[in-house]
Amino acid sequence: MQGAVLYGPRDIRFEERDAPKIIQPTDAIIRISAACVCGSDLWPYRGLQPIAQPTPMGHEYCGIVEEVGSAVTSVKPGQFVIGSFFASDNICPTCQIGYQSSCQHRELIGGAQAPLLRVPLADGTLVATSEVPSEDLIPNLLTLSDVMGTGWFAADAANVKPGSTVVVVGDGAVGLLGVLSAKQMGAKRIIAMSRHASRQKLAGEFGATDIVTDRGDAGVARIKELTKGIGAESVLECVGTQESMMQAIKSTRPGGYIGYVGVPHGVSLDGEQLFFSHVHLHGGPAPVRRYLPQLIKLVLDGKINPGKVFDLTLPLDQVAEGYRAMDERRAIKSLLRPNGTN
Amino acid sequence: MQGAVLYGPRDIRFEERDAPKIIQPTDAIIRISAACVCGSDLWPYRGLQPIAQPTPMGHEYCGIVEEVGSAVTSVKPGQFVIGSFFASDNICPTCQIGYQSSCQHRELIGGAQAPLLRVPLADGTLVATSEVPSEDLIPNLLTLSDVMGTGWFAADAANVKPGSTVVVVGDGAVGLLGVLSAKQMGAKRIIAMSRHASRQKLAGEFGATDIVTDRGDAGVARIKELTKGIGAESVLECVGTQESMMQAIKSTRPGGYIGYVGVPHGVSLDGEQLFFSHVHLHGGPAPVRRYLPQLIKLVLDGKINPGKVFDLTLPLDQVAEGYRAMDERRAIKSLLRPNGTN
Repeated sequence: MQGAVLYGPRDIRFEERDAPKIIQPTDAIIRISAACVCGSDLWPYRGLQPIAQPTPMGHEYCGIVEEVGSAVTSVKPGQFVIGSFFASDNICPTCQIGYQSSCQHRELIGGAQAPLLRVPLADGTLVATSEVPSEDLIPNLLTLSDVMGTGWFAADAANVKPGSTVVVVGDGAVGLLGVLSAKQMGAKRIIAMSRHASRQKLAGEFGATDIVTDRGDAGVARIKELTKGIGAESVLECVGTQESMMQAIKSTRPGGYIGYVGVPHGVSLDGEQLFFSHVHLHGGPAPVRRYLPQLIKLVLDGKINPGKVFDLTLPLDQVAEGYRAMDERRAIKSLLRPNGTN
Repeated sequence: MQGAVLYGPRDIRFEERDAPKIIQPTDAIIRISAACVCGSDLWPYRGLQPIAQPTPMGHEYCGIVEEVGSAVTSVKPGQFVIGSFFASDNICPTCQIGYQSSCQHRELIGGAQAPLLRVPLADGTLVATSEVPSEDLIPNLLTLSDVMGTGWFAADAANVKPGSTVVVVGDGAVGLLGVLSAKQMGAKRIIAMSRHASRQKLAGEFGATDIVTDRGDAGVARIKELTKGIGAESVLECVGTQESMMQAIKSTRPGGYIGYVGVPHGVSLDGEQLFFSHVHLHGGPAPVRRYLPQLIKLVLDGKINPGKVFDLTLPLDQVAEGYRAMDERRAIKSLLRPNGTN
């Protein structure tokens, strides 16, 4: 089969790879219905996170079960499934408390930008829908594998409640779905920090009530103007840089909550500054598996449409253009369809 | 009058100072019933936190109102009062959400190791008891001004609930009162990290069920042995060093809560490490004012006896020995009685 492999900075190739096989009896092989490019894929794509060797890319996926290992009991060939970017056994003490992305046996998914994918710990990782969904639902369901679950975790970690005032730092797909999540959780006021017209527009469609285009101290000042001078009770940090984290901390009121889901790159927090900020801080890799049943239901019931973040759809063999368009911010998020299903 | 003034590293003097006067109409003057030495006083005492000029010391206090400014309405001369180490107006937006130690008009209290103290924002800061309490209650009530309120905040920030498993990092007075607070909040298992026999003993009296004497990686390993291999759900960080903060982070299970109340000195948190730890982090200067009514009631009802942390009582003029004894860890906490009331 042919799949996407990263060789080095901005060198992504669509090339022949061995098709995955069952290795462990707990594995499943999935025929990918749709995959996509994640914001976090751009870190190694841009050379900001070195890779040791040519690396098959992609960790967001949904598709039809092709084959299962002998120990797999909860999914079977022919079913449509979605799983998290971290495989998890869903039974260890960490999974039991809802932090499957810190599962004691977790494995990072890789190589989903391909027609076939091996998913370890299939019983713990995959959630099947009762029927194979219609084509138009595929983009929505695909987002649940990572980007939507991550935006949801950001809002959950930031303690968004009915009536909350929320700030979202970052207008990438995760930030935009953070807006959607906050809206879904009943937030009254949602302030999206964005300078890009197309993203501002989508933020508005997802429920943003205010847009702030300023950044840094000017951005903080603007947020305080909008929040009685003290900052917001809930702030979603959806970038992962020093600048965005400080933007989040300074935009949060004393006693307020920050949910941070952008994988930190070079971020260092000064203990004394954090102490006197009086914020609550929680984040990490989103425990997508915890949210999957609930979010699948919201999609199937037509309550949310997170697939709108895909503003570029390409056949899988054009994956390189999918990366380029996101790198150059021409696209918010690129959807990839394996040849023959596009 | 005579009070304690810090001149430089380990140079604390009991000397003549001007008696405080009403400056603002919102001030009150308190005749100190008892004061004490705070763990945080040891930072400048040891020269680890430079002082610009000779500094009157002490910020934990209770006593009898001597005089009030013309705008003060909620307390009057003759009443016994307790207040926080941060004066607060208790009406600004930050106070209204219970973070009085981030009050928009907060002022740090100073100079309480003296017979008389000026308390700004008296209406917002001071809480009066209905009667002047008996002598034996004074040490218990004094702790509510800071150290007990801080231990309580640590447990509250660490989300301690009935049945919780709790780790307390730090066996100073705050850590020990963190143990008492966790017990009071219904924790089932309280693991105190301590190497000092007298402190281990008091931790046990306050409710600790386990003592861990190891530190660093060995301490973390021991905590994990005691907590199903994943760490505790609630951890109280009551020191404020890099070492103690890392001890706390590594001892907390994914999704668990850290309440940190030791003022950080030179602490820097790596964003990526914190992210993958999956902990909740909350702390800062304790909003003591929020807890005062509740904690006063617990003391007056005989439910808690936090004054047991005072294992050294001295007349105020021996304040220098109070500092020395704590610096050398001969005393957990030094109580100071102005001359004539000791």
